[in-house]
Amino acid sequence: MTNQDFVTATISDLAPLIQHRKLSPVELTRWHLDRIATLNPRLNAFLTVLADQAIDQARAAEDEIARGQYRGPLHGIPIALKDIIAVKGVPMTCGSKILADHRPARDATVATRLRDAGAILLGKLHLHEFAWGVTSVNPHFGNARNPWNTDSIPGGSSGGSAAAVAASIAMATLGTDTGGSVRIPAALCNTTGLKPTYGRVSRDGVFPLCNSLDHVGVLTKTVQDAALMLSVIAGADPRDATSACRPVPDYSQGLTAGIRGIRVGLLRGFFADDVRDDVKGCVENAAGQLRDLGAQVEELSLPLMDHVPGASLAIITGESYAVHERILRERAQDYGADVRLRLMMGAMVSAAQYLKAQRFRRMLCEQTAEAMKRLDALVAPATPVPATKIGQEVVRIGDKELAVAASLSRLTRPANMTGLPAISVPCGFSTDGLPIGLQIIGRPFEEEMVLRIAHAYQGATEWHRRRPPL
Amino acid sequence: MTNQDFVTATISDLAPLIQHRKLSPVELTRWHLDRIATLNPRLNAFLTVLADQAIDQARAAEDEIARGQYRGPLHGIPIALKDIIAVKGVPMTCGSKILADHRPARDATVATRLRDAGAILLGKLHLHEFAWGVTSVNPHFGNARNPWNTDSIPGGSSGGSAAAVAASIAMATLGTDTGGSVRIPAALCNTTGLKPTYGRVSRDGVFPLCNSLDHVGVLTKTVQDAALMLSVIAGADPRDATSACRPVPDYSQGLTAGIRGIRVGLLRGFFADDVRDDVKGCVENAAGQLRDLGAQVEELSLPLMDHVPGASLAIITGESYAVHERILRERAQDYGADVRLRLMMGAMVSAAQYLKAQRFRRMLCEQTAEAMKRLDALVAPATPVPATKIGQEVVRIGDKELAVAASLSRLTRPANMTGLPAISVPCGFSTDGLPIGLQIIGRPFEEEMVLRIAHAYQGATEWHRRRPPL
Repeated sequence: MTNQDFVTATISDLAPLIQHRKLSPVELTRWHLDRIATLNPRLNAFLTVLADQAIDQARAAEDEIARGQYRGPLHGIPIALKDIIAVKGVPMTCGSKILADHRPARDATVATRLRDAGAILLGKLHLHEFAWGVTSVNPHFGNARNPWNTDSIPGGSSGGSAAAVAASIAMATLGTDTGGSVRIPAALCNTTGLKPTYGRVSRDGVFPLCNSLDHVGVLTKTVQDAALMLSVIAGADPRDATSACRPVPDYSQGLTAGIRGIRVGLLRGFFADDVRDDVKGCVENAAGQLRDLGAQVEELSLPLMDHVPGASLAIITGESYAVHERILRERAQDYGADVRLRLMMGAMVSAAQYLKAQRFRRMLCEQTAEAMKRLDALVAPATPVPATKIGQEVVRIGDKELAVAASLSRLTRPANMTGLPAISVPCGFSTDGLPIGLQIIGRPFEEEMVLRIAHAYQGATEWHRRRPPL
Repeated sequence: MTNQDFVTATISDLAPLIQHRKLSPVELTRWHLDRIATLNPRLNAFLTVLADQAIDQARAAEDEIARGQYRGPLHGIPIALKDIIAVKGVPMTCGSKILADHRPARDATVATRLRDAGAILLGKLHLHEFAWGVTSVNPHFGNARNPWNTDSIPGGSSGGSAAAVAASIAMATLGTDTGGSVRIPAALCNTTGLKPTYGRVSRDGVFPLCNSLDHVGVLTKTVQDAALMLSVIAGADPRDATSACRPVPDYSQGLTAGIRGIRVGLLRGFFADDVRDDVKGCVENAAGQLRDLGAQVEELSLPLMDHVPGASLAIITGESYAVHERILRERAQDYGADVRLRLMMGAMVSAAQYLKAQRFRRMLCEQTAEAMKRLDALVAPATPVPATKIGQEVVRIGDKELAVAASLSRLTRPANMTGLPAISVPCGFSTDGLPIGLQIIGRPFEEEMVLRIAHAYQGATEWHRRRPPL
């Protein structure tokens, strides 16, 4: 295979080659490690690279396959994890100076599941400090950079996870998503980013930002690869009481069923204001393409969604302060200024405010469930603007100036507050050449429908095939 | 039947007579209404008596049975509800002046279930204002009184519910229990009081005190009657998202299986201090009797239980303030002083304190579940002291003076924090002639075991047969 072949190759492309010993996991892993060595200094996507360990794992995978013990489509595939997911003995910084020397004593459940599926761990990925931000601008480990423009943010908090997939320095990665932290960087870096239903994937061994909103998600080059990853990491886990005891389907099945007759609600009112025109244009085009593929697209209004940011803030600040309270007392100066401020805000949230926000959440779930009785999915942009510049605090949309952090996360938060499965897939480029993401939201535990719609869209479009000029 | 027969009669005694038309529901209802007219002025157990409506219901029940349509053991049985449970068109004060004119537009689910089972509703019962206290001392509706000594409290918050059963002016009642509000008055009035597992009984149509700790429970003359009541009110309810989707057994089955070989943990350390000697003596005797009945009784220590009061207070004050915040802003002067103070305390609880208390709760559940792997039930007193005097704020135990409210609820709170099923059954009398309650706590959704142990105990003892000298 040529270098360019590896750049564009998906897990689905390579798995059969590995299975039939036409491609060596060692060769594939070495190619990725070489590319990391070349590109990571510019992208800062990896915080830890496990070169020797990855090669050892790849050799073991190759030996197993040679012995006829093929574990499945992730066997021999090089992946990486956001550095907030525990791997035994491997540094886990959570993007913070405070945990710079932390080495977990055991694997997160998702790490174990990927290992058991035969995946090769390349290393740990850059993130916004403690996942509490959407830019991946980080005072302790430098800024992660967007492969499409290294002066721009990759988005966050799973910035390294998206940049690594976009730059083809990992075939798939895991991130976490509390207010959009998988979907935002996926949109800004032109990757596929799936946040499953709350409870679908165990959060055991994942450092919490906000227990009631945290999700583990996957970033991949295609929807097909997201389905492969989800099939491995999903499912009940006795170590996470919030994980759902529901059977896990093979998410690769039914992906190609098409979307004729599928009913899609376009949340036009939700993104009418404070969204850049080029973003709106791409999403409207995408809705048209879904219609061309046979879907029934109708406009839908869910007024409660406009109140999500306030309620979401009360919950995240309240819960994250409770997690960090003791560290804040002892080492407040060791946090980045932005994260310290966000955490401290939580000290001022009262139990009543917190509980009202949770009550709002139940109302939002009811309103959304009611609307989705007759709809298979909702559609909106993933972010109101493409990637902003590193250090940029304010973004201009029309004649308004908006805070970057609040703006970037506004459209993704509802799927955290409702727990609904949501994906971002590439749907076009801005006038200045930066990627734009289409968000598709499904009903609880209907990841299959979300993936099916997103896969049909990727079958009809080429946006997800574009690679950054590196 | 003689007057004394009716005073002592249980549902289990009368149901076959009603079924076979040897006892008229109208006669039984009229007897109860007459006795209410005689005794309620002294006891103040009923806030609303539905005399005409009850007679109409009794006539309809009698007609149905005459037509051969027998609904089951509650058919034609006169019962009553704590005045915090909605009945369509009937005043629901919640013990507060603020809701003095409130008439709900529909029934609570439990009210519907009892009605569908053929029970006759005598009226609505006295309670501590908004269920936020354990004395049933009430500035708006006068004090409910203990049938064993009308200068004493019946306990609370379901004071009227316990007093009514003890005084034989209702055959069974419903109460609610957030920190002990069914078991405390049951203990203080010599009735049986069962708080089922969290999620076992719907709270739809019940005015909330604290959503995460509120339970609906039953008060009856015997364990056998509690089983009959629970069989009717238990089960999933789409109107209460916290209600559990688990099948409802017939709780009358297996009641008489005996307790040979059953393993019981005596929480001796938990009630070693700050519990009156006569109470301890009764509970130790009860443990001996369980042993005589074939149970294996061992001593058990659950150190986390000592920290329950603080965590419980953060949760109840935080959640109840969130419920009452708006009314407090507009009508603070219309609450009783004690309830206003308790509610206002909630304004000072932070989200982090609240969340820490909920985290403590999960630890307590784990510790208790671990201990109960090898135990079928736990045993402790229901309250550290028998009924105190109306207006009494401090209780002397040994050489200590303790606050009445905190003391009365200390031993019941753990079963709310863990959600475990718990019952209080009469187990003796104090030196001054007041009832004492034995508390039996079971594993989640093992109401059958709790009832079986309690029934075996009642089969071997006579305490529950004693009636107050009215």
